[in-house]
Amino acid sequence: MTTDANAADAETDSDARSEADSNAEPETDGGTDSNAGSSSTGETVTGTVSLVGSGPGDPELLTVKAKRLLEDADVVLHDKLPGPEIIDTLPDDRREDVGKRAGGERTPQSEINERLVELAREGKDVVRLKGGDSFVFGRGGEEAEYLAERGVPFEVVPGVTSAIAAPAVAGVPVTHRDHASSVSFVTGHEDPTKDDSAVDWDALAATGGTIVVLMGVGRLPDYTAALLEAGTAPETPVALIERGTWPGQRVATGTLETIVDVRDEEEISPPAVTVIGDVAATRETVVEFIENDYETPATGAEE
Amino acid sequence: MTTDANAADAETDSDARSEADSNAEPETDGGTDSNAGSSSTGETVTGTVSLVGSGPGDPELLTVKAKRLLEDADVVLHDKLPGPEIIDTLPDDRREDVGKRAGGERTPQSEINERLVELAREGKDVVRLKGGDSFVFGRGGEEAEYLAERGVPFEVVPGVTSAIAAPAVAGVPVTHRDHASSVSFVTGHEDPTKDDSAVDWDALAATGGTIVVLMGVGRLPDYTAALLEAGTAPETPVALIERGTWPGQRVATGTLETIVDVRDEEEISPPAVTVIGDVAATRETVVEFIENDYETPATGAEE
Repeated sequence: MTTDANAADAETDSDARSEADSNAEPETDGGTDSNAGSSSTGETVTGTVSLVGSGPGDPELLTVKAKRLLEDADVVLHDKLPGPEIIDTLPDDRREDVGKRAGGERTPQSEINERLVELAREGKDVVRLKGGDSFVFGRGGEEAEYLAERGVPFEVVPGVTSAIAAPAVAGVPVTHRDHASSVSFVTGHEDPTKDDSAVDWDALAATGGTIVVLMGVGRLPDYTAALLEAGTAPETPVALIERGTWPGQRVATGTLETIVDVRDEEEISPPAVTVIGDVAATRETVVEFIENDYETPATGAEE
Repeated sequence: MTTDANAADAETDSDARSEADSNAEPETDGGTDSNAGSSSTGETVTGTVSLVGSGPGDPELLTVKAKRLLEDADVVLHDKLPGPEIIDTLPDDRREDVGKRAGGERTPQSEINERLVELAREGKDVVRLKGGDSFVFGRGGEEAEYLAERGVPFEVVPGVTSAIAAPAVAGVPVTHRDHASSVSFVTGHEDPTKDDSAVDWDALAATGGTIVVLMGVGRLPDYTAALLEAGTAPETPVALIERGTWPGQRVATGTLETIVDVRDEEEISPPAVTVIGDVAATRETVVEFIENDYETPATGAEE
């Protein structure tokens, strides 16, 4: 259930980390792609793929380059995380939604990879559009490797990551000379109670820096508990930013000890980022003078 | 000397962390600013300040909003780190360089803070332009607090951070499902051999995730030694990206054990970011097909 709740809370919504689906995909396509290895056959691919980060959702936080490529692309492959205001501007006849299917299941990453290669071989200029930055929990690295293995030229167009931007527009700097000399980004899809969790919450706690969790609303109880057990102070400030820079952005704040209750009271739901660390309290001192107008008040906003 | 070498290697070049200068500045201006506290006097400030991240340096990696604000601003306060291609487009009569002074010393942060308030009180629309993102080792958080304390309305315009973008355009994804479930950003200005270093390299090593060091060319020998001592494998791949997305970007790669020699051989100098972790090896598998055309070859490039 928490896995489901996390589904949209990612810089990619095709980035499932559950054992059931994505881990079953082989890193390479294991011979099922009859075109594999064309790079060594000398076949010339005339199309190109641009791995483009859309930024957190505000269309004005697209880069100049991303905007130009979206206007010029033959095809845009996207999921939902670039946000409604960006998705709605993409012309219907030049886009393909490779996010969730009608039944709610994800399009497997292997299918997206193959589609990118197929379109490039047809000579198309393809934009692969991801929310935030493609190389921050966005599978951009895997897509780049897949394309290179098949001789498809590609370029990387970095985006504004929501891991930094969503807190920033809410008045939370992820680093601060007085509070945080490092910041760590981590995916909230992992179950921290599992023995084989790839995320070491003890070590993250020990850094003493800010921790930003992407896709982290569903598993909030698990990793806040893990951090408390690792010795992080219960009064450590925490901020949840739901739909950062999207219409109706909401922000809820509390402490490591209270934030799960706050989440429930305010009904904060994906997509959201969680910021854990003293920097989260900066919001209180600056919010009155922030002119970023994304926000719908969270406190008391629920009917 | 290493401190000097690091001077420009930051998302801000007014962000000195050495004891000698910035730490001597009080967090607030200690009563020297006679206008302090005007927010409580009800004085209306008619200007605004936009804390704008420029991205890593390529003008096309400015956000649409940053570009618009730069065109419309009454004054732009900047240092050198937005990069030559962006700085050169700013009209001379609407910009102030608040980076290094003629003598090579930095403009103190307190002076920059005061200048922002002064201009806003004159009714000016001010852009405070930083390289990368203002809230990643860019003093944006401090500037926001200073402005709020004095009743100056401000907005935050996130940028593409060079911590992610410089590696990305060189073919290095900072996270990867097979290699890194977390990524930590840290400043290289700190001396890891000092007892009171705010950065816990042992804990960072223990996360098992990617480590990206900003402003980290000068102290490379110190923190690579600290990571080796913490048990990080000597063969861990490392990439140095100098002037990421600037004209003449250069990339040098090695391992935790060899990278200091590589740096010296290739004469890699600030500004640069260091990426430590298995993801750094991804470059080798994809570089042939990357169409990002920023690079000047590093290997053998020195006469």
